[in-house]
Amino acid sequence: MGREEFLEKARAGVKEAYLEKDRPLMQCVNAIDEIDKTSNLLFERVQEWYGIYFPELRVREPEKYCELVMKVDRRNIKVDEISLIVGEEKAREIQEKAQRSMGAYLSEKDLNEVRELAKEVLNLRILSNSIESYETGLAKELCPNLTYLIDAPLAAKLIAHAGSLKKLANMPASTIQVLGAEKALFKHLRQHTKSPKHGILFQHPWVNSAPKKERGKIARLLSTKIAIALKADFYTKRFIAEKLKQDLDKRMKEIKG
Amino acid sequence: MGREEFLEKARAGVKEAYLEKDRPLMQCVNAIDEIDKTSNLLFERVQEWYGIYFPELRVREPEKYCELVMKVDRRNIKVDEISLIVGEEKAREIQEKAQRSMGAYLSEKDLNEVRELAKEVLNLRILSNSIESYETGLAKELCPNLTYLIDAPLAAKLIAHAGSLKKLANMPASTIQVLGAEKALFKHLRQHTKSPKHGILFQHPWVNSAPKKERGKIARLLSTKIAIALKADFYTKRFIAEKLKQDLDKRMKEIKG
Repeated sequence: MGREEFLEKARAGVKEAYLEKDRPLMQCVNAIDEIDKTSNLLFERVQEWYGIYFPELRVREPEKYCELVMKVDRRNIKVDEISLIVGEEKAREIQEKAQRSMGAYLSEKDLNEVRELAKEVLNLRILSNSIESYETGLAKELCPNLTYLIDAPLAAKLIAHAGSLKKLANMPASTIQVLGAEKALFKHLRQHTKSPKHGILFQHPWVNSAPKKERGKIARLLSTKIAIALKADFYTKRFIAEKLKQDLDKRMKEIKG
Repeated sequence: MGREEFLEKARAGVKEAYLEKDRPLMQCVNAIDEIDKTSNLLFERVQEWYGIYFPELRVREPEKYCELVMKVDRRNIKVDEISLIVGEEKAREIQEKAQRSMGAYLSEKDLNEVRELAKEVLNLRILSNSIESYETGLAKELCPNLTYLIDAPLAAKLIAHAGSLKKLANMPASTIQVLGAEKALFKHLRQHTKSPKHGILFQHPWVNSAPKKERGKIARLLSTKIAIALKADFYTKRFIAEKLKQDLDKRMKEIKG
C-alpha cells in the first residue's frame, strides 16, 4: 500500500468516526443549553433596562414580556394590540399601571435599543425550539426504543452526558440512574454521605413530581428499562419498546398504589 | 398637603431619579458586556458543530467564520463567493482544504441548524455594535470633557462601575486610578500584597501597551486628568477638555521620553 493510499484509508476511518449520528445530537444538546442560558441572561437585562421606563410591568412568561417591550408605548397604550398578547383583562391592568407609572420617559432611541434586545431574546428562543425539534428527529432515528420510553430531549441529554450512544448502551442501569450526579456520587464514595438517587433522570416528570422518598425507586425503575431499550437500539436494532413501556407503566402503578 | 398631592410629589421625585441619563448608559455597558460574552459562547458552539463537517476551516475573525458557515458548501465550493468574504488567496486555500477534508457529510438539515446558529452570532454582534454607538452618543452628551480625553465606551465603563456620574465625579483621582481593581486593593490593605496600579483604566491603550513598570505612572496621570474633567462635566458644565488633553499629551511625552 502506497503512502497516498494509506493516507486515503486513514482519512476514510476518521470520516467514519465523524459520521456517527450521536455527534450532531450532542451538539444539539449543548447548543440548546447554551442558547437557553444566554437568552435568560439577556432577558434579565431587558427587564432591568425596560424597568427604568416601566417598572410596574409584570408578566410571567419571558416571551410575552419581550413582545410587550417591543409593542408597548407606555404613553400611548393600545389595549386592542396588547390584548392579543396577554388577553383583555391583563391588557387593561397594564393600561392602568401605565397611567400611574413612576418610570422615566426614556428617549425613543433608548427604547429602540431595548426593543432590539428584546427581539434578540425572542430570536434565541425560536432558535432553541428549532434546534430542539431537529434534535428530537435525530434522537428518534438514532434510538427509537429509548425515545419511546422517555422524551427525546431527555434521551439526548443522557447520550450527550455519556459521550456516545455506544457508551450509554454499555452502562449498567445503576450507572444510568445516577448519570449527571457524579459529584454527589464521588462525595458519597469518599465521605460516606448519602448516595445520590438520581442525576439527569430527575428531569423526568415521574421523578421530579413524586414525593421525595419515592424518587429513588422510580429512578431505578426507569433506568432499568432504559438500559434494556438502549441495548436494543445499539445492538439488536429491534423495536421492543411497546412491551417495555407496558411493563414500565405497570410497575409504576405498583409503586404509586 | 393632602395624601393624593403628597403621593404625586413622591412619584415626581422617583421619576426625577429615573430620569438621570447615566442609568441608560449603565444599561448599555452591562448589555454590551453580556451580549459579547453570549456571542463568544455561541461562537464556540458554532465552531465545534461546524467542525464536524469541515474541521480544517480556520479563520481568525469570528464574524468571517460565521459568514463562511452560512455560505460554504464544502462539497461545492464557490471561490468567487468566498473571495468576497476572505479575499481570493484565502478562498483558494479553503477550496483546497475542502477537497481533502476529513469532515463528515452532515445532512442538509443539520447544516441548516448550524447556519441558523451562526446567523444568530452575527446578529448579536450587530446588536452589540448598535448599542455601543448609542452608548457613545449618550456618554458624549453626559460627559463631553471626559469623552474628549478617553474613548466613550471606557468612560461609560467607569461611570457604570462607580454607580453614577455623580459618584464618579466625587471620587479622588487615586480611587479612579484603581477603580475595578477592588479585590486587589482590599487584599493589599489586609495582607500587605502589592497595591494595584490600575483597574478599568488598564483598558486604555496607553496603559496596556506600555512596559509594565510605566503602567502605574501612566494610569496615575490619566486618572488625575479624568478627575478634573469629571468635575467640569458634573459641576461647572464648562468645556475645558482641550486644555486638559494638551496637558495630558505633554506629560505623556515626558514619561515616554
